[in-house]
This record gives sequence, structure tokens and C-alpha cells, in this order.
Amino acid sequence: MTSTKITDTTHPPSSTVHRRIVALAGGVGGAKLAHGLAQILPPEDLTVIVNTGDDFEHLGLYICPDLDTVCYTLAGLANPETGWGRVNETWNTIANIEKLGGPNWFRLGDQDFGTHIERTRRLKEGQTLTQVTKDFCAAWGIKHTVLPMTDSPVRTMVDTDEGELAFQEYFVHRQCKPRVKGFRFDGVEVAGPAIGAREALESADAIVICPSNPWVSVDPILRVIQKINKPVIAVSPIIGGKTVKGPAAKMYEELGIEPSALAVAKHYRTLLSGFVLDTVDAHLSEEINTKTLVTDTLMNNLTDRARLATDVLNFIGSM
Amino acid sequence: MTSTKITDTTHPPSSTVHRRIVALAGGVGGAKLAHGLAQILPPEDLTVIVNTGDDFEHLGLYICPDLDTVCYTLAGLANPETGWGRVNETWNTIANIEKLGGPNWFRLGDQDFGTHIERTRRLKEGQTLTQVTKDFCAAWGIKHTVLPMTDSPVRTMVDTDEGELAFQEYFVHRQCKPRVKGFRFDGVEVAGPAIGAREALESADAIVICPSNPWVSVDPILRVIQKINKPVIAVSPIIGGKTVKGPAAKMYEELGIEPSALAVAKHYRTLLSGFVLDTVDAHLSEEINTKTLVTDTLMNNLTDRARLATDVLNFIGSM
Repeated sequence: MTSTKITDTTHPPSSTVHRRIVALAGGVGGAKLAHGLAQILPPEDLTVIVNTGDDFEHLGLYICPDLDTVCYTLAGLANPETGWGRVNETWNTIANIEKLGGPNWFRLGDQDFGTHIERTRRLKEGQTLTQVTKDFCAAWGIKHTVLPMTDSPVRTMVDTDEGELAFQEYFVHRQCKPRVKGFRFDGVEVAGPAIGAREALESADAIVICPSNPWVSVDPILRVIQKINKPVIAVSPIIGGKTVKGPAAKMYEELGIEPSALAVAKHYRTLLSGFVLDTVDAHLSEEINTKTLVTDTLMNNLTDRARLATDVLNFIGSM
Repeated sequence: MTSTKITDTTHPPSSTVHRRIVALAGGVGGAKLAHGLAQILPPEDLTVIVNTGDDFEHLGLYICPDLDTVCYTLAGLANPETGWGRVNETWNTIANIEKLGGPNWFRLGDQDFGTHIERTRRLKEGQTLTQVTKDFCAAWGIKHTVLPMTDSPVRTMVDTDEGELAFQEYFVHRQCKPRVKGFRFDGVEVAGPAIGAREALESADAIVICPSNPWVSVDPILRVIQKINKPVIAVSPIIGGKTVKGPAAKMYEELGIEPSALAVAKHYRTLLSGFVLDTVDAHLSEEINTKTLVTDTLMNNLTDRARLATDVLNFIGSM
């Protein structure tokens, strides 16, 4: 019930410097806050655990959209226009596939294809996704730890008015048009956290749920890691009843819940030690049954990412 | 023992117009003459049967170097500098694979990757290589028939002083450096000709062996198709004791045979009704135990290809 407004600062106070954080992230929004945290925290103090429920096999390749978005973002290689894919990308591979009558609904750039081809090759050789991700991060100069949530196959399935759809089929091919009725995480019952994830969670001072889609980006991670005995701080991906990107607000609506920061706080209610919502939603703060931080949560540029990360770390420091 | 010098002409005499030709081709040199023939003959009168002994799986993709070189050349999409690969190509996929520490010795361009990805996808779905090639030719506007020699796996293995090497390992990775001792076409005993190849051979008026490597480009095709009851005309890939491209001359040398047009004619001796050799090798003509045509066989540009094709067709017409 406490609303805390913290003054913006680009320099973290000393109290936050040695805080060890695990960030849970999906795609674009999650990647941005993870990038902000990586600008503030030293490598040993940040582990990003990324959703792999939207991974899929396509064109014979093993594709990890959220993992790649997080890595490209942390490496400064992400396309700043789209948030996903690579900057300075070319599109000649997919153009030829299209010319040859192949599937063209999932747009992959030429550099991006290299990532999927090399990852698929390594997985077929027997490497784990965790190992591949570690090697790729090293190659791209990422010093913080990025982990897939699991090395086991977990597939987010979207139950819709047109039947159950694999996530990318719903999200990209059908452009989120079918009405959502529920979600299922195929394989989650037998999937353990990736090697290193449990250790990171145990040595963390706090867990930050990044502003990613609660239903399809964060819930799969939470389902895999199961127990969390640390303070959890979530940042709302819904601002003024809308999502910056992606179908989270539409999903809440179709499931009969008014999309709002309040709905997100309720989504995570059993977990939360603190909740971060946007200034435009300040009026909802009193209704939220945990400590709140009201601040600017929109991340339009690199400075915004570091500022929000600093706010979140200061909020954790104040608790 | 007959040497026939035919005057160059870019217009075929009427006698050749309705001749049905099957051309046997490997990579760059074979593709150029096939392209010349395609400029002269109507689509129904030319079938190109292409070596697949140098096909291989790499980066999880099914790659057909000779087949792609022939198709790209016939479609006008080939890189005129190298003879293989695509014109106006970019190299971003392989650059990222290289950055990630993946295998980079086989250089594939971005558009070219699209070909391999879509072909691999279709083969995994159960399409034959013949069907895939037919569809790709249609997409690229190739009107003449291009067939892989077989839909079965045949793999050219090169016996060398460093042991037996898979063809691309020898050819690209080791850059033909190991000394050749012999060749083996793994799987050839059980490989039948591709659907349509037998019919094309039976309805042909003549078979043209294009100026490709006799050991590793043409022999695998001849081994697969076995019986030929039609006149066979071969064009020497060796000019003045050297090959325009590729290791044919080096192979002859390492096998203890002086590389020359004469050696090529002897290579095919049981099959030949006619042999085409370059003007620089005119002196060898008398030693060749079949009808010969001495003409300019170097194909530096599109006009050269059509001219040599016309010469070859006129030679056939004269027989």
C-alpha cells in the first residue's frame, strides 16, 4: 500500500551496487529492462533468465525468438526500429526462400539466419541450449549471464476460438487475431531450470520480473523455476491499459479481465514484494496490495533503460 | 581420325534445330556449355543431367554445388566472376556463423543459403531432389529440363595420400592439396537414374559430355546411367594441358597420366562418337581415335557459350 516516488538518477546509489539480481525476461520489453540493468550492474551481479516457451522449429532450424532478442539487445546488435532482429540487417535469404515458394510468414534476416543455423548445428551435435547461449554471448561480447529458462522443450500453446495454436502460429502467422481462451505450456511438468538458473536464483538478493507479457513470456519461466524464496519485484508491461508492444492487453481483455497495471499486479499477487507501475497509472497504486514504485516505465531510448533500471534497483534498495 | 574444322556461326543450321540433346554436366565449365546449348535449343530438345556426387550435408543443410551452379547459370543468376554462387550476393549469414565460431570453410552467400534451406525443408518433407529441382527451375524461369543424375545418395570419395576424403573436404576444405590416388562413388551401385533421365536418354539424338572434370563430375553420372545407346560427343575440359578451372589436370598428373585433351579422349574412349578439342590442341587431333572437331572451346562470355554450343551441334549434325 506504500507508493514510493524515487527521483530519476543515472547513477545508482552505493546501496544497489552489490545487489545481485536475477531478471526474468521475454522479448522486446523484457530485453530493454535487462539491458538497462546490465548498464548498471557488474557482470557477476546480473543473470537474465529468458523465456523459451516461444521457441520453435521452422525451416529445419531451431529458433529462440526471446533469447535472441535479449542477446541482440544486450550486445547492442538489435534492430532499434523493431526491437527484435538485427540492426543493419539484409533479407536476401528469406527473399530467395519466398521466390522458391517456401514459407515466408516468419521473417528472418540474413545475419539472424546465421544464428539459427549455427545454433541448430550445435544442438544437433549434442550441446545444450545453455552452452550454446553461453558461447554466443561470449562471441557477441555480452559479459552478463544470459540463460534460457530450461534446456528441455517447453512449448507455449495458445487455446483460441479457432482451436489450440502453437505460439508462433498464433503470434506471427495469425498475428494474434484468434481470440484467446487460455494457455498451456507443453512439457513444463518435466522441464527443470537450465544449469546455473537455480544457483543464480539462490544467490540473488532479488528477482526482477521485467515488463514482458505475463501470460506467455513470464508465466512459462515461473512455471519452470517453481520455487522463489527471494523478494520479487515486477514491472508492469501495461501502461494506461495498453501494452507498448505485443498482445498482453488483448489477452487480458479476451480472458475477461480489464487490462491494467492492477491486473498485472494481481496476476503475480502471491509472489510480489514490490510492483513498479507507470506515472500514468499512479491512481491504481492504492489498489495494489504490495509496495509500489510509480515512475516513468516507458523505455524509448538507451537512457530510459538505464534510468528505469536505476529506479528499480533503488526501489529494491529501499525495501 | 577425321579432323573437322567448322566455321563459327551464331545461327545453327536447320539440321540441328530439331536434334534432341542430353548434356551431362558438372559445375562451372559444364554449366557454361549447358547454358550455350540452352540458348540454341528449344526447351523440349535439351535435358541437362547434373552430377550429384559432390552433394553434401553441411550446417544441417543439403547442398548440391553442381546442380545449383547449372541452375543459377541457366537462370542468369550465377556470379560471373566465380562461375559458382549467385550474382549480387551478400555474405551476412556466413559472417555471423563465423563470428559464432561455426564452420566457415564452405562459403555460402545469403541468397544461396535460401536455396539450401528451402531444398532441405522440402527433402525432409519427402520430396525427391528431382521434384525440388523441377520446382526451383520453374521459380527461376528455367525452361529447359535440369535433372540431378539420381535421387539416391551417391557420394564421391577421393582417395589421397592423406587417406580417403569426402569430395568437398578434398575440394574446398583442403583446396585439392592432398595427392589423388583414386576415386570411389559411394552408393553408386544401388543408385538408379533420376525419374525422367532414362526417358531423356532414350529419346535423345546425341549425348554431349560437357567440359567438366572427367574423374569427379562426369564419371559419377556415367556410372549411374550405365548404358548409353546414343552417339556421345565429349568436349575436352583440358586446354593446352591445363584446366580452365578445377583440379582435373592435377588429378591426371597425380594418377600418372599426362594431362591433355588426348588423355580426356582416352578416358571416354569406349563411349565416343566424336570429340571436341581446342585449337591450341589441334596437333593432338590425329592421335585421337574418333571423329574430332577442333575449335575454340574457351568460354569467356555468353557469346562464347552459344558459339561453342553451335559448333558442337553442327559437329553432331555432320556425323
